[in-house]
Amino acid sequence: MIPVDTSHSPYAKLRPVPLNAVTLSDSFWAPRLRTVREVTLPTQLTQLEQTGRLDNFRRAAGLLDIPRKGYVFDDSDVYKWLEAVYWSLLPLSHVGEGGQGGEVLPTILAAQQPDGYLNTAFMFDKAAQRWTNLRDWHELYCAGHYIQAAIAQTRATGDEQILTSARKFADLICDTFGPAEQGKRPSVPGHQEIEMALVELYRLTGERKYLEQAQYFLDARGHSLIGGSPYQQDHQPFRDLDRPVGHAVRFLYMTCGAADLYAETGDPALLEALTRLWERATSRQMYLTGGFGARHTDEAFGDDYELPNRQAYCETCAAIASVMWNYRMALLTGDARYTDLLEHTLFNAVLPGLSADGQHYFYVNPLANDGAHTRQPWFSCACCPPNLARLIASLPGYFYSSSNDFNRSPSSTTEVVTTNSSLGSNDFSRFSLWLHLYADNTLRYSLPDGTPLTLDIRTEYPWQGDITLTVHGQGPFALHLRIPGWCADPTLTLTLNGTPLDPAPIPGTYHEISRSWTDGDTLTLHLPMPVCFLEAHPAVAENTGKIALQRGPILYCLESADNPTANLDDLFLDLMQPPQTQYHPDLLNGLMTLHLPAEHRPPVEPWNHHLYRPLPSAQLQAVTPFPATAIPYYAWANRTPGQMRLWLKFMSPSFTPVLPNTQKNSETPAHA
Amino acid sequence: MIPVDTSHSPYAKLRPVPLNAVTLSDSFWAPRLRTVREVTLPTQLTQLEQTGRLDNFRRAAGLLDIPRKGYVFDDSDVYKWLEAVYWSLLPLSHVGEGGQGGEVLPTILAAQQPDGYLNTAFMFDKAAQRWTNLRDWHELYCAGHYIQAAIAQTRATGDEQILTSARKFADLICDTFGPAEQGKRPSVPGHQEIEMALVELYRLTGERKYLEQAQYFLDARGHSLIGGSPYQQDHQPFRDLDRPVGHAVRFLYMTCGAADLYAETGDPALLEALTRLWERATSRQMYLTGGFGARHTDEAFGDDYELPNRQAYCETCAAIASVMWNYRMALLTGDARYTDLLEHTLFNAVLPGLSADGQHYFYVNPLANDGAHTRQPWFSCACCPPNLARLIASLPGYFYSSSNDFNRSPSSTTEVVTTNSSLGSNDFSRFSLWLHLYADNTLRYSLPDGTPLTLDIRTEYPWQGDITLTVHGQGPFALHLRIPGWCADPTLTLTLNGTPLDPAPIPGTYHEISRSWTDGDTLTLHLPMPVCFLEAHPAVAENTGKIALQRGPILYCLESADNPTANLDDLFLDLMQPPQTQYHPDLLNGLMTLHLPAEHRPPVEPWNHHLYRPLPSAQLQAVTPFPATAIPYYAWANRTPGQMRLWLKFMSPSFTPVLPNTQKNSETPAHA
Repeated sequence: MIPVDTSHSPYAKLRPVPLNAVTLSDSFWAPRLRTVREVTLPTQLTQLEQTGRLDNFRRAAGLLDIPRKGYVFDDSDVYKWLEAVYWSLLPLSHVGEGGQGGEVLPTILAAQQPDGYLNTAFMFDKAAQRWTNLRDWHELYCAGHYIQAAIAQTRATGDEQILTSARKFADLICDTFGPAEQGKRPSVPGHQEIEMALVELYRLTGERKYLEQAQYFLDARGHSLIGGSPYQQDHQPFRDLDRPVGHAVRFLYMTCGAADLYAETGDPALLEALTRLWERATSRQMYLTGGFGARHTDEAFGDDYELPNRQAYCETCAAIASVMWNYRMALLTGDARYTDLLEHTLFNAVLPGLSADGQHYFYVNPLANDGAHTRQPWFSCACCPPNLARLIASLPGYFYSSSNDFNRSPSSTTEVVTTNSSLGSNDFSRFSLWLHLYADNTLRYSLPDGTPLTLDIRTEYPWQGDITLTVHGQGPFALHLRIPGWCADPTLTLTLNGTPLDPAPIPGTYHEISRSWTDGDTLTLHLPMPVCFLEAHPAVAENTGKIALQRGPILYCLESADNPTANLDDLFLDLMQPPQTQYHPDLLNGLMTLHLPAEHRPPVEPWNHHLYRPLPSAQLQAVTPFPATAIPYYAWANRTPGQMRLWLKFMSPSFTPVLPNTQKNSETPAHA
Repeated sequence: MIPVDTSHSPYAKLRPVPLNAVTLSDSFWAPRLRTVREVTLPTQLTQLEQTGRLDNFRRAAGLLDIPRKGYVFDDSDVYKWLEAVYWSLLPLSHVGEGGQGGEVLPTILAAQQPDGYLNTAFMFDKAAQRWTNLRDWHELYCAGHYIQAAIAQTRATGDEQILTSARKFADLICDTFGPAEQGKRPSVPGHQEIEMALVELYRLTGERKYLEQAQYFLDARGHSLIGGSPYQQDHQPFRDLDRPVGHAVRFLYMTCGAADLYAETGDPALLEALTRLWERATSRQMYLTGGFGARHTDEAFGDDYELPNRQAYCETCAAIASVMWNYRMALLTGDARYTDLLEHTLFNAVLPGLSADGQHYFYVNPLANDGAHTRQPWFSCACCPPNLARLIASLPGYFYSSSNDFNRSPSSTTEVVTTNSSLGSNDFSRFSLWLHLYADNTLRYSLPDGTPLTLDIRTEYPWQGDITLTVHGQGPFALHLRIPGWCADPTLTLTLNGTPLDPAPIPGTYHEISRSWTDGDTLTLHLPMPVCFLEAHPAVAENTGKIALQRGPILYCLESADNPTANLDDLFLDLMQPPQTQYHPDLLNGLMTLHLPAEHRPPVEPWNHHLYRPLPSAQLQAVTPFPATAIPYYAWANRTPGQMRLWLKFMSPSFTPVLPNTQKNSETPAHA
């Protein structure tokens, strides 16, 4: 029940809490997980069938004599779908009509070659091409996803059918690739993924060679074994990289693998590189949504501040990979900046990839559009849909962590003095639970001594910021509550049984409350959620004179569906009046809208076919008030196609009013 | 002396005036032409030598036994350089030290194969690869430039050495490529160019098969003979294209070839496509500079309104190609919109490619930069430097045209009644001279009956807009003066011998003055040159809240060299006070600077590593007056590297002043 199991990782600060220990009962995530189980997974199975991805396995298993279809990496879509089914805790045969899902696994197992090799693209007439182009043909990428499906099956069901098969494949890979002095073939995968899969396989099996193989693949990269291109991050060793470059998903999967390796090896150069690259990425190359990969060309990171809105690539898989990376960084460090970004990315860069109906997707996520970009039921390159399914299915596993020994320095701390403790000081405060994400849920867990413990969280998050946590059970331990970095409001409070805690919690940190808890103890976290107006660094060229709207963890956008009578480019928000909010339980699975006064300033003269023209004089501009309505960005493109804008113009309060014919002689020097 | 000779083209409205009929004596172009002769051409010869481009010909001629160097298209750089030398009216042996230039031509001629084939990349061991990859290997592109060098030599010197050789090559091409039913090989060049060369060769020789071959290459394109990619515009027939797409230079060379074909054939579908594509390109895909090709990827046109400033590609060759296309469109139609854009592109997109010292170049022309983009003495792909040389060397040929029969509808007309004309009405007004560009110069020409005619133009254009034209000689003819479209000032005047003409001339048209001229007649055109503030269509995302400065035909930019104490992104121009101008004869070959008051608004708090943040409150912003200095955009990057911005922020006069805590209840509706 643990996708990333750092339970025994010597260099990880946090330990996982199994996803099945968490029961979501909220109105945001719980219905989405249900939709994944009831709509997403069955419709994806239909797509896997209709597009020939399952037939490719039937062919490989000798059940069909047909040509192979699709891309060389299409097998991975089936593996990711399998992984999603297991994290959903669904029996395979319960997915699809007539138990169709039950056929998938036996077919895959039958497709494996006697020596362990498994890839439907390189069999029969193509068998001689096996391993001949690691740069472009994705065999190790597919193998990695197969290993991850195996791990999910074993952890979710205890069965080891895939695991047995995947270990055989992994053993073949370990025997094949490595240093020449070991008689192996020096090479690395063109698309990273197998690194994290092999570390996880090591965690599951205890077999150290899988860890060493992951280490080999990370270390051998950057030495031109596959051509030396930045596209595959093969131009420089990982430890030497000073910035994210090349294909975004490959880069981000690589960072996940490196973080997993650090958790096991503690190599300080890895953590230094990870920290350096995270800081560079988030300060120069990240969309406000948390999305990465600005360029359509090569699906790549852009230059510093190259973050176009309409032309954004911002692949859904890159956002998912960023969640995976940030989760690992949080496990390593317990630093709330990573969980802040994880939550932000989840709401604002991952969720936009999935439609309200759970069966249409975005691969590319622009931040501005005029209606041409619409959700699709599938893609010829279909990495994103099953990636969304497996992340959302495993989401309860991201809510909590535990730790047994922690460094308090990154957190603000409230020590509640217990005058009558019967516990040894060594035990007191050494066990902690960490709360990363908030939603109505119940955690059923136990303290290290076996004492049952239940945490009940009641909240309307992400729509309201009041969170009540009730402890059922008792004993000494610490709670680390994530105080979201988005909450800058000074009226933020945290109370224990009605008494405000002192010192007050600091946004962007974990607030530790270490005490001996009593059944019924209640924490109340009050996170005010005013609408925040965000600006971008001036070097982000498209966002000059624009702001974005955020409330709580949710970014907003304007869509034509709610503002049908205006060209969105002609609206200027009035930021001087507080926006109003309204919850709509029946709109797009339930969401909060924002309502802001704006001015509608259509062009003085129509642009017609002009691309440039002299600036019209100010007096002629027709200005009318316009009530603007914003919806969460994740919910866009679920209604009639139209305009969408995340970055919005506004009536700038910082501009000195300058009226025509007003001379300001005292302020401006004369020129010769 | 005529690069594009429409003298006998049945469907061209205008006829060329030879470039050697025009003597430039101005302080803008004349020194630049001298620099091309004295600096650019000799230093380019050195580059051709040092980079092995001349050795490739020596090798091909059997004079050297060395490996071939460089790209498959490197021969074309030598041909374009040759063409530039001829249009400069320089003897080849006068270029370079020790008469080095004189060696070039004999070596090329000796490199030609017995059957006429000439390309140094496909000889000896590579001879079998001849014509095997028309899509990528540029043999026909190089052949086109060889033909154009031949035409230049013959027209400039009367010699036919290259012409004899180039015809042999052209004959081979005509015998090789064509419809299968003629026993030929159906294919088209991956990089267009030869189409216009073959039409010009037809014009020079009268050999119709060259015209037919050009027609074949245009018509066969778009039928997937070379793969069907939009990159080479092979996805759709030219006549069906609805928008510019793919590699910009290839597209623009194709339009030149299509315009040349129309001039000879009158096929209305060609003119319709040319007009449609011009209107689409200029209304959706053109930088304010006139530059084309927004994307680095594929050196391609972007989507509609995809015009990033910092990331602009905007290849110098694409601007040159646009000048060539617009010139041809003007020849076909006599429509001033084409010469308006020709002039604008020349000053603002072509000239920026050439350094003030005449020996450093830009291939890529961003509209914003922070100092990293610097001029280079050469490029491994060196198409732009000799392309600049040949265009500037032939520039006097772009100043005038003539016509013998014209349609008056696109022009505003002043008919000066001559009460005592002794001329037959058939002759009167049928001969016209068209003035496209303005600079101090003398035209020595003759009327159709042989009467000598001299026009003397005296002006400080482009720095001042007063132009005096004196006619020496007499007779009946019309003058068509281009009234630049950039001049929107109502005080524009045109006088004949001191008397204002009525009706007044209309900017963006040719103003016709048809009369019997007397020796000493003087026209005075007064074009006021206030600084114009330009805005971009709202869909050009990076230019929101920004303006550009233009004065006369010249676009301006801010550079750190003139504004060293401010981050240019923190300057907001005050548009309410008229900018001051100052001419600097010794700055970068002489130029006019603009001086504008601005406000310096550094960030309230330093951004440090933040990429996004809450909008600071207005009261905190420190604002200081700042005297900003702008220079012509063409002159940027000739001094210490620093910031450059063409699009500039300003203190918006159209924004209603909104101050914090000011409620505007009456204007904005309440929201539920």
